[in-house]
Amino acid sequence: MSKGEETREMIIREAAAVFNRFGYFGTSMADIMRETGLEKGGIYNHFRSGKDELALAAFDYAFSVSSNRMGEVFKTVRHAADRLIAFGEVFKELLDDRVLPGGCPVMNTAIEADAHPGHPLVNRVREAMTAQLDMVQRIVEKGIARGEIKPETDAQTIAAMFVSSLEGGVMLSKLYNDSRYLQRVLDHLREHTEMHLRA
Amino acid sequence: MSKGEETREMIIREAAAVFNRFGYFGTSMADIMRETGLEKGGIYNHFRSGKDELALAAFDYAFSVSSNRMGEVFKTVRHAADRLIAFGEVFKELLDDRVLPGGCPVMNTAIEADAHPGHPLVNRVREAMTAQLDMVQRIVEKGIARGEIKPETDAQTIAAMFVSSLEGGVMLSKLYNDSRYLQRVLDHLREHTEMHLRA
Repeated sequence: MSKGEETREMIIREAAAVFNRFGYFGTSMADIMRETGLEKGGIYNHFRSGKDELALAAFDYAFSVSSNRMGEVFKTVRHAADRLIAFGEVFKELLDDRVLPGGCPVMNTAIEADAHPGHPLVNRVREAMTAQLDMVQRIVEKGIARGEIKPETDAQTIAAMFVSSLEGGVMLSKLYNDSRYLQRVLDHLREHTEMHLRA
Repeated sequence: MSKGEETREMIIREAAAVFNRFGYFGTSMADIMRETGLEKGGIYNHFRSGKDELALAAFDYAFSVSSNRMGEVFKTVRHAADRLIAFGEVFKELLDDRVLPGGCPVMNTAIEADAHPGHPLVNRVREAMTAQLDMVQRIVEKGIARGEIKPETDAQTIAAMFVSSLEGGVMLSKLYNDSRYLQRVLDHLREHTEMHLRA
């Protein structure tokens, strides 16, 4: 990577953390500069059209962090029922703020999207959420095809259920700063998977 | 109600709708004035210390709307298993924006709370979320005591599961403007209640 590319990546990484905590629409370029210690010229040099361009790059980066992590986990977990459980476990990593402070970037941005119809970020967050839902749906569908998941399972219902409850569980655990809420959701999903989904 | 009280109520109602769509921290008094058509003096006359005071009153109002609705539904639904299902069904009313635009005020504010530790609104949203969780937990505990719910049921897990998945389901359905996501969550919770919770 060139020096310029490194700086660009650093700006995106730092901005993603600020946006994820304070919201894309609630954060100004002045906030980004203050929180990251970057100077205006330094940012605009890489993001000529300003905040929206940086916001889109930061959102893409934030989402790529969690989807890359999912891909890494799936390398060693092959059975569809185990993949469903592993999908849930990855959400626990959103709680400790190590990679990206502020919880799940997809949910956080989805909550904001409602008030800003037509903004390019709204399409982006829909695509990211659809990628999460599709991931669960495909695990179930492939699992049925391979005889790993019970054939009567409705893949779309499982996708909606997993994503809703995990996002909601992250929200509760962040609110109380207590991982037990998400853990209870994971316990339920694991039990449901073992009792009703595993073939 | 006196004229002054009526005006105060009207300001709270209108402000609650703006805050719920745009966020408490992302909304300025200027936004409130523009969106509600109210004048600065008119608002400060009732909320002398400004935005925070109005925000707290608006949040309390928004939460009271949904908890009153819950209380109304429970007047005619007595069996604990039916109450669990009815608790979920009330979340559907958050989708149509008739009472309060912008989805669930408790979840929306919880997402914002993370970035504002120590703000009085953070305690308020924790209390409101705890009231939701306690409501489900008490339905289960009373149901066990009355022989309506299986005695081995873990009330805290059910509370976390119901609230997480319903809040997440509202978020998905708002994001796509498609009620089917929340409906899939409701289908799962109903099935789980009938198969595993009803005694």
